[in-house]
Amino acid sequence: MPAKFITLEGIEGSGKSTLLQKMADWLAGRGHSVLLTCEPGGSALGRELRPLLLDADREKVCMEAELFLYLADRAEHARRVIIPALERGELVLCDRFTDSTLAYQGYGRGLDLDLLRRLNHAATGGLAPDQTLVLDLPPEMGLSRARRRNLEQGLERKEGRFEAESLAFHSRVRTGYLSIAEEESGRVKVLDASGGPEELFSQACKHFPREMEL
Amino acid sequence: MPAKFITLEGIEGSGKSTLLQKMADWLAGRGHSVLLTCEPGGSALGRELRPLLLDADREKVCMEAELFLYLADRAEHARRVIIPALERGELVLCDRFTDSTLAYQGYGRGLDLDLLRRLNHAATGGLAPDQTLVLDLPPEMGLSRARRRNLEQGLERKEGRFEAESLAFHSRVRTGYLSIAEEESGRVKVLDASGGPEELFSQACKHFPREMEL
Repeated sequence: MPAKFITLEGIEGSGKSTLLQKMADWLAGRGHSVLLTCEPGGSALGRELRPLLLDADREKVCMEAELFLYLADRAEHARRVIIPALERGELVLCDRFTDSTLAYQGYGRGLDLDLLRRLNHAATGGLAPDQTLVLDLPPEMGLSRARRRNLEQGLERKEGRFEAESLAFHSRVRTGYLSIAEEESGRVKVLDASGGPEELFSQACKHFPREMEL
Repeated sequence: MPAKFITLEGIEGSGKSTLLQKMADWLAGRGHSVLLTCEPGGSALGRELRPLLLDADREKVCMEAELFLYLADRAEHARRVIIPALERGELVLCDRFTDSTLAYQGYGRGLDLDLLRRLNHAATGGLAPDQTLVLDLPPEMGLSRARRRNLEQGLERKEGRFEAESLAFHSRVRTGYLSIAEEESGRVKVLDASGGPEELFSQACKHFPREMEL
């Protein structure tokens, strides 16, 4: 099987991490070597940057500095983690990648989309996902799920910076994802994430590349 | 007096921090409000990033990640520290700025200069120094000074990442600074930094904008 790089995208509370774990288990059970990773935080550098980007109780940095921190995380992750895994023939499943930058920093914060595309390219050296699944749901529903998770996880969960953004912000991010999916309908598939995890997983299975079902 | 933004550039061991302190004292003694600052590390975010960039005993990140960390530092520094100080009418003296990225990441590491200029612009929003002094000396001399300083400061000095680069690297960085000075001879002045601190200071004084000598 050729190496495959699959990314999951979606707003907070859309169920990305649960789906990713299910996909990894399913694929590993079929004998695939799977690397399950995420942004920010998929490299040693990224683990140091993640709290700077996500902890809700830290002072927010300006949006340009935020953007460059995400790009530093991505450059290290792509070049030191993802590309070597693909070269070893592993299947890479990644929670967020380049589309997050377009959706959050572009559509959400209003930074120029063409600039962001060029910056993504500089960070990744041109590495692009073979397939991207966008987990779509109304932002009200996503935020209410994310807040419930934060309450359940209590003090352990400090990564609430984006959950603290307005509903209007999350609505722009959703619009961003749907626009990207329209523009790149070959690579990007939209899943309805408003149901339960099992239903989401069965939708995702339909989009797995054929050759994975060995 | 109009607000002025002055940057000092040069390879390791060229005497930037000593000269900057002398300039700040001299200007403060003449009644100017002076902000003395540096990159990386001139903002709260920058102080968290500085060890990631400079500590010699940390694992090196890839050069693209390094670049984006410097840009994150610069974006926060320019927008949260330098521009507000200039708006208050202060004189800003800064140890390294955009030219360091061109000299080190461009000439030194070989990243594309046009890309770096666009990235600098995105980070700063177009803020450029009114005057830049390049402290020039043979890299052998700079490195030997920097190593002596590191020995004297012993374990307190961990920021040796660039001192550990090859002589060829520092020679490319020097070439980079001299090329920038040729291209932008109005803004950028080259000082001979091979002599002592007093001699360097008297050279620097000649380039202070006239209106500072009040």
